Amino acid sequence: MQKKDLCYAGKAKKLYTTDNPTVFWVEYLDQATALNGAKKDQVVGKGALNNQITSLIFQQLKSEGIPSHFISKISKTEQLVECVEIIPLEVVVRNVAAGSFSKRLQVTEGTPLCFPVVEFYYKEDKLDDPFINDDHVKLLKLATGKEINDIKYLAREINVALQRIFTQIGIKLIDFKIEIGRTKSGQLLLADEISPDTCRLWDLATDKHLDKDIYRRDLGDLVPVYEEVLNRLENQFLVEAQ
Amino acid sequence: MQKKDLCYAGKAKKLYTTDNPTVFWVEYLDQATALNGAKKDQVVGKGALNNQITSLIFQQLKSEGIPSHFISKISKTEQLVECVEIIPLEVVVRNVAAGSFSKRLQVTEGTPLCFPVVEFYYKEDKLDDPFINDDHVKLLKLATGKEINDIKYLAREINVALQRIFTQIGIKLIDFKIEIGRTKSGQLLLADEISPDTCRLWDLATDKHLDKDIYRRDLGDLVPVYEEVLNRLENQFLVEAQ
Repeated sequence: MQKKDLCYAGKAKKLYTTDNPTVFWVEYLDQATALNGAKKDQVVGKGALNNQITSLIFQQLKSEGIPSHFISKISKTEQLVECVEIIPLEVVVRNVAAGSFSKRLQVTEGTPLCFPVVEFYYKEDKLDDPFINDDHVKLLKLATGKEINDIKYLAREINVALQRIFTQIGIKLIDFKIEIGRTKSGQLLLADEISPDTCRLWDLATDKHLDKDIYRRDLGDLVPVYEEVLNRLENQFLVEAQ
Repeated sequence: MQKKDLCYAGKAKKLYTTDNPTVFWVEYLDQATALNGAKKDQVVGKGALNNQITSLIFQQLKSEGIPSHFISKISKTEQLVECVEIIPLEVVVRNVAAGSFSKRLQVTEGTPLCFPVVEFYYKEDKLDDPFINDDHVKLLKLATGKEINDIKYLAREINVALQRIFTQIGIKLIDFKIEIGRTKSGQLLLADEISPDTCRLWDLATDKHLDKDIYRRDLGDLVPVYEEVLNRLENQFLVEAQ
């Protein structure tokens, strides 16, 4: 497999074409950003950590029947993924009140929600990724009515599988953001990444933050925290796979 | 019918109990507010105008089969309504981009939408009436899943009926906000008011604002504009009723 042209440069990843038109080459970057890019820093080691964490989680999700764009990890900072059209939606699933949800509805952070809440945000930097509803998704032609239902169903399935994964390593899944890709044939696949950048993860025993809130809220050094998440995942799931 | 105790004082209306436990007595006030009450003024005549406009529109909607809490107008500033529990949602229907929708999605004000968009806002002053989605409505126990569907259906029916009414008097219905009441038996009824305070109304020929944006945006005197809406309605529908 040959890496070819850069086709997308995001805040945390670069995407390259390959000699196989159905495969993209992803490189995870050592960059941390928050507040829609207003806060930005180089964090050595972060790219490798998120690539390894995402690869492990996507493998585990695949074994639980969740379809994703993930093909294989090819180095500490790189992976191959199936070429999909990314639907410009940030799909958020919440099990416990935190972050913007807590602010918007004045629900104390840490309050368990009586069912998992799904939210859509329009992935458009110049609009500051606004929160939108199903009618807006249809109006903006981001997805059809059927796709909206399928995305919500997939998001809830992923939530169940992720909760199972994280509970096994002593972590509470507070909320997470996913992106969905559409294949040429119209199939919807989990895409992007699942890592402490895109999830709120609290230690099951102590409620300690094990995610990007460490960086967002200036609570300390991000690297040892992400290393802890990777170590717990490797201890549980690499051993199991042997 | 005897007016009894004040049971609710809103920004634009006061609500009293009566000697009939199923009937409320509504008094429309001469107060204009915008920006969730941050801008506030006394506007002599506004209460009478909105009471007369709402009464006419609710009568007209009833004749088109839209169930509402309206019973009868009893003076220039007062009406009797059925006692309902107000669901704390502002239900907004949009036919043309304007206001917060235009800002949120950067769609030029005046752009027709390819279908009527329905939005929910949580009616809670201390939270600044946040925009919410269906999951939030269920989570906050504001309405059940079935009620959410029924509210959207009712809102779209009202939109069709209102568009018919306003087109006849040379007015384009850009968007509007309604509130829904729940009777003791669980029936959903259109409640609150429908007036230039709660609709964006543009003159069909000139696009001149005939609504509260006159006040919100400091475009001139509100009273003659609301009078024009009332006059057009009376000319069309009072004559018809004779």
